[in-house]
Amino acid sequence: MMNFTYTVPTKIHFGKGQLPHLAELRDYGDKVLLVYGGGSIKRSGLYDDAMAILKDAGITVYELPGIEPNPRIQSVRKGVEMCRAEGIAMVLAIGGGSTIDAAKVIAAGAVYDGDAWDLVLDPGLIKGALPIFSVLTLAATGSEMDMVAVISDMTKNEKWGTRNPHLLPTMSILDPTYTYSVSKKQTAAGTADMMSHTMENYFSMEVAAEIQTQFAEGILRTCIKYGPIALAEPDNYEARANLMWAAPHAINGLCRDGLSPGWCIHPMEHELSAFYDITHGEGLAILTPVWMEFLLRGKAAAAPMGSDAYLAVMRRLARFGRNVFGLDAARRAQDVIVAESAVLSLKSFFFETLGIPATLSAVGITEEDNFEVMAEKAVKNAAGWYVPLTADEVVEIFRAAK
Amino acid sequence: MMNFTYTVPTKIHFGKGQLPHLAELRDYGDKVLLVYGGGSIKRSGLYDDAMAILKDAGITVYELPGIEPNPRIQSVRKGVEMCRAEGIAMVLAIGGGSTIDAAKVIAAGAVYDGDAWDLVLDPGLIKGALPIFSVLTLAATGSEMDMVAVISDMTKNEKWGTRNPHLLPTMSILDPTYTYSVSKKQTAAGTADMMSHTMENYFSMEVAAEIQTQFAEGILRTCIKYGPIALAEPDNYEARANLMWAAPHAINGLCRDGLSPGWCIHPMEHELSAFYDITHGEGLAILTPVWMEFLLRGKAAAAPMGSDAYLAVMRRLARFGRNVFGLDAARRAQDVIVAESAVLSLKSFFFETLGIPATLSAVGITEEDNFEVMAEKAVKNAAGWYVPLTADEVVEIFRAAK
Repeated sequence: MMNFTYTVPTKIHFGKGQLPHLAELRDYGDKVLLVYGGGSIKRSGLYDDAMAILKDAGITVYELPGIEPNPRIQSVRKGVEMCRAEGIAMVLAIGGGSTIDAAKVIAAGAVYDGDAWDLVLDPGLIKGALPIFSVLTLAATGSEMDMVAVISDMTKNEKWGTRNPHLLPTMSILDPTYTYSVSKKQTAAGTADMMSHTMENYFSMEVAAEIQTQFAEGILRTCIKYGPIALAEPDNYEARANLMWAAPHAINGLCRDGLSPGWCIHPMEHELSAFYDITHGEGLAILTPVWMEFLLRGKAAAAPMGSDAYLAVMRRLARFGRNVFGLDAARRAQDVIVAESAVLSLKSFFFETLGIPATLSAVGITEEDNFEVMAEKAVKNAAGWYVPLTADEVVEIFRAAK
Repeated sequence: MMNFTYTVPTKIHFGKGQLPHLAELRDYGDKVLLVYGGGSIKRSGLYDDAMAILKDAGITVYELPGIEPNPRIQSVRKGVEMCRAEGIAMVLAIGGGSTIDAAKVIAAGAVYDGDAWDLVLDPGLIKGALPIFSVLTLAATGSEMDMVAVISDMTKNEKWGTRNPHLLPTMSILDPTYTYSVSKKQTAAGTADMMSHTMENYFSMEVAAEIQTQFAEGILRTCIKYGPIALAEPDNYEARANLMWAAPHAINGLCRDGLSPGWCIHPMEHELSAFYDITHGEGLAILTPVWMEFLLRGKAAAAPMGSDAYLAVMRRLARFGRNVFGLDAARRAQDVIVAESAVLSLKSFFFETLGIPATLSAVGITEEDNFEVMAEKAVKNAAGWYVPLTADEVVEIFRAAK
């Protein structure tokens, strides 16, 4: 595992009905720049709800609508000018990743003495930013909880990502119901986008970063399970919620920090978008399997068939197949039989493999005078249950553990 | 998935040679209370190294040694008094979870007008804290990156956890080499502790929180893989690093927020420790399988054999067996064959299941005039590679994607 510094301070309010947390913005000032895209947040009522909460909190709202998919530097510059002219204290994005990305660079540009495009080309120039907030309406880029922004200048066919801790949102509201109205096309592209972020991290020659790899596989399996459900049932809360909470972890460092990131499909796709303004997630989905086949056929000069590098790639792709797509999965035994074996396995692991003493007696607890009072307190202090237990049942467990 | 607020702002410096980051403490003041346990940090040289860095940074160090496993409120009170008497600005723990837990309640107690034990009994009384820092020497509790502290008053056989965002460390240094000297017993107990945290979250009736469940299974598999290696080879960096980075995620909210946490084994074990001062992780390891068998035999009145609740428990235990212990895993096919199938699966998922257009042509890219300049830029802008590619190879990928 490589060295790294991990920092994800963004506070997330997740779930239904979280919008009133927008009132927290009042702690940061009384003038906000509201950044959004097309009219969808007006049609859905989200715009009106947010405006009412901000107004009640005593916050004056300045508006920058019309942020594009593949957001343009021209829109960013407009926002920067507004912040400077009006003495605006913070930036709130309501929308998807493009809107949040624009808000981030506006926030950094507002405190930068120069053109905001500089900050896109050179992240090191970002020395601060106005506080950034977001209300997410599309599960995809993870911009709501990361330090990345991607901005385009279509007049130059340029699309670049910039990355700096100052771009981390202070607080983001993630309400899965806001994604019910996302189209099938954008739902699919968003799912591919977060899977792509995950795979960019997953395919690393640094295979000793196991915990990050496990997290990545978990995100991929979650996408594979819930992407199709969200397509078939756009208002399936479980599906929308899991996709929404998977997305930021695909990119905020959880699956990347400690690896040697092979972030190489994105730069390819950015070129596609910069030149052709296609949907980012679709571009990624198109390129990725082709890239894999390229490696698989031994066509990369750096990993020719038969070389050690080629064999390492095969191992990783095979792990990907087994763990993400279950290609080797066996037929399922009956639940109860497997559950029994699971407990035996755990015991074997703790007591044989780890060598932990197997009983209370073995750690010196040979009497049971205190079990009842202990059980009463344990029951009283339980912060929730999987299955509720009475104090008598807890005593029985203590006894059985002797 | 339930509603939740997620906040984990702790900055982590992870890896070899991170100790010089202690100089960052100078941003928070010039007097620090250094909290530690026995003499192990003196024997290892860590104490001397830290003192030198703090001194160079112009920080005056006040020392509170002798923090116990199952840390006592009496030690906390001593630390609080020192902070008040000397006008100390921050608290630095060097040690394991017990030391960090003590430091947390000292930091909160220093700004609380009353006895620190109040803060253990009632987390709601915690309204602030001095900045908290840690250098971790034991992978187990996750205290280095969570808002929990567990303090005991052995004169009353009381051991309670308190939980408040003010207890989150500002910065923690995680150097896996500092855990090389951890004994077999503590390594095993630490592994069981983090697994227990994970399982407390995993066994929840809220099964719709899939992404959290996936993360939990990843932590458990990582522990099962690396626990035995750390026992057999105490200075195996890969094993120590993965355990060290798994531990905080078992408890910082990643596997819990969004579930209905069934945190019910810990309260049982806290009683064991409060009464018998046993090693926490061993107590957990002893209780957990017994608790599972109890459920498995249908002995819990809330989930009698044949009931819906019982069947739900069986399903979860079976999933645990399959996904964590691989009880159903099939024999492995050859890597290359599985890798081939993995790519086919991904394509099928993107293009058939998700319905994403399958080619560049299908999204309107029919010519290839720009491919070469795009490839050059993609290669130049790649922030690392899985397998290095030339611009020509990128062009070939673009073409193959048409």
